[in-house]
Formats: sequence, structure tokens, C-alpha cells
Amino acid sequence: MSENLPAPGLLARARLLAAPTVDASVVRGLERITGRPVEQGFSGAPPEEPFICVGATLPDVLRGGPLVWFHSVNAGTDALLSAGPWPSGALLTRTVGRMGERIAQYVLAWALADCQSVPEFAAQHERAEWRRIPSELASGQTAVIYGTGRIGSAVAGLLRACGIRTVGVGRAARTASTGFDRVVGADDDAQSLASARWVVSTLPLTPATDGFFGTDRFAGMGGATFINVGRGATVDMRALEAALRTGAVGRAVLDVLPEEPAEPGDRCWRLPRTVITSHSAGITADEDIVVDFAACWKAMAEGRMPDTAVDVGRGY
Amino acid sequence: MSENLPAPGLLARARLLAAPTVDASVVRGLERITGRPVEQGFSGAPPEEPFICVGATLPDVLRGGPLVWFHSVNAGTDALLSAGPWPSGALLTRTVGRMGERIAQYVLAWALADCQSVPEFAAQHERAEWRRIPSELASGQTAVIYGTGRIGSAVAGLLRACGIRTVGVGRAARTASTGFDRVVGADDDAQSLASARWVVSTLPLTPATDGFFGTDRFAGMGGATFINVGRGATVDMRALEAALRTGAVGRAVLDVLPEEPAEPGDRCWRLPRTVITSHSAGITADEDIVVDFAACWKAMAEGRMPDTAVDVGRGY
Repeated sequence: MSENLPAPGLLARARLLAAPTVDASVVRGLERITGRPVEQGFSGAPPEEPFICVGATLPDVLRGGPLVWFHSVNAGTDALLSAGPWPSGALLTRTVGRMGERIAQYVLAWALADCQSVPEFAAQHERAEWRRIPSELASGQTAVIYGTGRIGSAVAGLLRACGIRTVGVGRAARTASTGFDRVVGADDDAQSLASARWVVSTLPLTPATDGFFGTDRFAGMGGATFINVGRGATVDMRALEAALRTGAVGRAVLDVLPEEPAEPGDRCWRLPRTVITSHSAGITADEDIVVDFAACWKAMAEGRMPDTAVDVGRGY
Repeated sequence: MSENLPAPGLLARARLLAAPTVDASVVRGLERITGRPVEQGFSGAPPEEPFICVGATLPDVLRGGPLVWFHSVNAGTDALLSAGPWPSGALLTRTVGRMGERIAQYVLAWALADCQSVPEFAAQHERAEWRRIPSELASGQTAVIYGTGRIGSAVAGLLRACGIRTVGVGRAARTASTGFDRVVGADDDAQSLASARWVVSTLPLTPATDGFFGTDRFAGMGGATFINVGRGATVDMRALEAALRTGAVGRAVLDVLPEEPAEPGDRCWRLPRTVITSHSAGITADEDIVVDFAACWKAMAEGRMPDTAVDVGRGY
């Protein structure tokens, strides 16, 4: 990855392009940081001079040009990387923003909504129905969190602050990740899954995680609520449906789906005890894009690889 | 209060009565702890010998007898105390259980449900509607919590663990309460109220708190969500309705009402942006009654006033 670090001289003279969808406030921020005008919109032939690009996708026409650095306005870069071979030598960075914090609060909100019957009370209220529903204490129960990187650690840290026991599933090299009471490998998750109250996935989509949550893994759950804030295609939806029907999965909260957006007639809306939240958990704010771009710019000016650089071979 | 501590000799020979509504598992626990049979149900004339009583209410017939100690199966004792003058010299203790923890989790669940649009997503799902709703970060925002005792401190501690700033409103003597970033007096709450994202009441019902949340206090809020886990009669419902209509109160989550249960035709069900949760936030489990009774028994055997003793003059 580090061989892709652009030379300061190259960055100093590169043109700066931004996708048409990038907000004007972000454009102003980029101009302020780099001290050059932003060319918004990609048209005609690719630039012949080195260029930096900020956007959600990399148009084909630009893949052929001398791209120095692409800064993604999103955290997930799988769509970018799967659209075609990544231009050789181009650095890819991403907007993480307060993504970890946002997603952690999403997960905690839905975990507690479960314990406190938030949707049920909202529905009762609509019916003007007074009926006590005892709550369940979240503290002392276990959450198994897939992915022990930045997002997974943030989720674990917040759940643990609320007294929930956290087991991470991830690469062994990350056993020192913060927020986890314990970290196990993906081949060693059966026991944790069986006793989990919540199973949370923060997994990115890579060839290794495609369909990762399938029949066996779901069948091994003991009534847990499954919360997916990673990528939709890591889940075999037929296997999830079967597990919801047997009760192996007690509830599902899906922020992501294999195919988005879901059409009104999609089978996913009729899954039992499921809520779909329309890929909203980790929406990045415009200010996040500018802040994270600035951090990358500063790091490279100092000859350091940015913290948010993506290993394009690994995919995250 | 301490003059009411029953002498060990008195406790050793007192009869033990329990209300008919007390569960059999609790009765067995009480018998185990005290080493004597429980007489369940109150009938006929009051006992002439000293007696201990466990229940939710104190029947009139027992108020005349030599009551030594009443252990309430609930945390709130206002109904008990308002039903008539408290028998002179009788100790009153209450079941707190994991009430603080339960109520804290309730408050956090609803605070986060607000930020994460949990009820809205549940409703969208029912309509098979895919629509992104950006979330709001709870961290960095302020919650003002009325009541700095056991429950208020537990609420503050949990909210603070999630990065929420906590301002307590309570008696000055409690400025050292845990969980609060700051504590102010009830006459000094205007500035905190205006900037609060959440206003949480854990207040007990006493002559001083009856109608405490009225026109002025609600009008001084700047769109906060009002969460009441204290007592319903501390709120002037007409004033709350007016504030919901002007937007001074953004949303309301009411676990308690001045009159419970609410009938289907009650005006409260039609308050805008409100959810009523049927007095469910702090339901005590049967095991809590036994655990807290045992703690009282042990304290008195050692000549100490139990932690859960109620100051019957003050009312909590």
C-alpha cells in the first residue's frame, strides 16, 4: 500500500476534480485546503496531467488518466473497487468521519429498542392501548460483533459502556482491539453465537465475506437479534429467512441488503420480526468529507500514509 | 428516621404478614430469610402482637395495629403514604431492586430511539418503504435530569457513558452525586432547560413536586424531548400539551400519567409526537423484592438503618 503514497511535488501540481454530486460547501472546503480551484463534473477525455479526484464513484473515462489520488466520500469502497481494475499506482482514501460513533449509536439504539419494546410501545400508542410490557436488562448479556476494525471496535466500546459483554470475531492480529472483552477467530465462533443476545455484523464486502452469514452460522444462533451494519451481500437472505422462521434468529435489524434499494414488492419486507432501515446507519455528513480529506492532505504533506487509506488488494 | 429502627428483639418475635398479591416465590424467600411462616392475606382484626408486613399497600385495618416494619414491593411509596397517616414508629422500606439500572436503560433507549428514528423506521417497514433517514449523534448533546438521587444518578451515569452531557437538578446537598457533569438547584434550571436535548424527570410525588412541570418550565424548553419516569402528577398535562403544540417540547415519552391507566378515549393518546409506555420502565421483578428485603433484614440485625428506608415525613 505504502508504495502508492504520492510524492508531495505531484500533489502540489495535480488538478483537482470533484464529482457533480459533491455539495458546494465541500467544494469550497477542498479549495481552501488545497489552494486551487475544483473542477466539478467529468466530461470529455481524461486529463493528461496528474489529477486528484473526490467522489463516490470513478467514471470509466477517468480510469485511463494519470490518477494520483481518489478520495471517496463514503466509507465503503467495495462498489468503487468492483467497478473495474483500480488504476495502477493510484492512492485510495475514504471518508470515515464519525462513522464509528454513528454506527455504534445505531447498534445500541436497536439493541435497547429490543429490550425496551420501543416499536411495540409506539404501535400500542397508536391504538390508544394501555398495556404494561416488562423490560429486559441489556446489561450482563452478550453481543458478538463481527469485524474488529475501526467500526467494530466503536460498536463494542459503546455496548460495553452499557454493561454488555462484547465478543469480537476477527483476525487474530487484532486481539488487542479496544472495546472487546474477548476476540475469537471466524472458525471459532460457534460457542459465542449460541449464547449471544445480539449478533452484529460490521463486515466489509470482500470475496471472503460474500455470503458469510449462511445456513450454518444462522442455525447456530440461539434466538439472537441479528443486526447488519456492514454490507448486505455478506448475508444469504434465504438462510436468514429460514432462521427467522425457526427462531434461531429472534429478530433482524438490517441496515443493508444484497440489493438496494428494496422495491415495495421485495420479499425482505415480509420477513418475520424484521426492520429494514434503508442504509441510514452510517450516513456521512458533508463536513466529514472535508475533515477527512484535510487529514489525508496533511498526512501526505508530512510524508505519512493517511489513516483512511484503503488497501485496494484487500478491499478495505 | 433513625428513631424508627426496630430493636432486634422486636424483629425476632414479630409476626410476618404478606399481601395476597405477593407471589409464592417471594413468600418462600421471606420465610427462608426470617425463619418463620408468612401469614398471607389480611382479615379480621389487626394483630395485637408486633408484626412486619410486605406488600404494595397497607390496608386500613392494619394501620391501627402495632406495625413494626412495612416493606414495600415497589420503589414509589407515595400511594402508601397518601392513603392515611403513617403508623407512628413504623419503619418503611422499599424495593429498589435494579430499578436505577432498569430506568436508566429505558431513558437511554428512548433517547437513542429519538436520534435513530426507531419508531419511524418501524412504521416505514410496515409500509415496505425504503427511505433513508439521517441519524443524529446523541453524544455531545445535553440531558437535564430532575432528581439527583439513586434513580437520577443511575440515569445520568448511563447517559454520560454514551457521551451525553448531564446536568442534574436537585438539592444542593447532592452536588457530589455520581453521574452528573453539573448539578443545579430547581430555581436555577432555566439556562440548562433552554439548551437541553432531553429533559428527564425522575422526581417522586410530594407536595413540593405536584404540578412541578407547568407552563413556565415547559415554555422555557427549546424543543427538548421530555421523558417522565418519575410520577405522573408532577406534570401539568395541559401545559405539556400546549408546549408540544408550540414546539417548546419537541417530543414526549411518558411512562407515567396523573391518572393511570389511561382510558382509550383519554386526551393523552392524541398529544402530538408523544409515546406513552404504560408505567413499564421500572417494573420490579419478584426476585428484587426478596433481595431487597434480605438486605434490610441484614442491616437491622447489625443495628444499621437499611439503605432503602423511606423518610415518611419527606415522602421518599
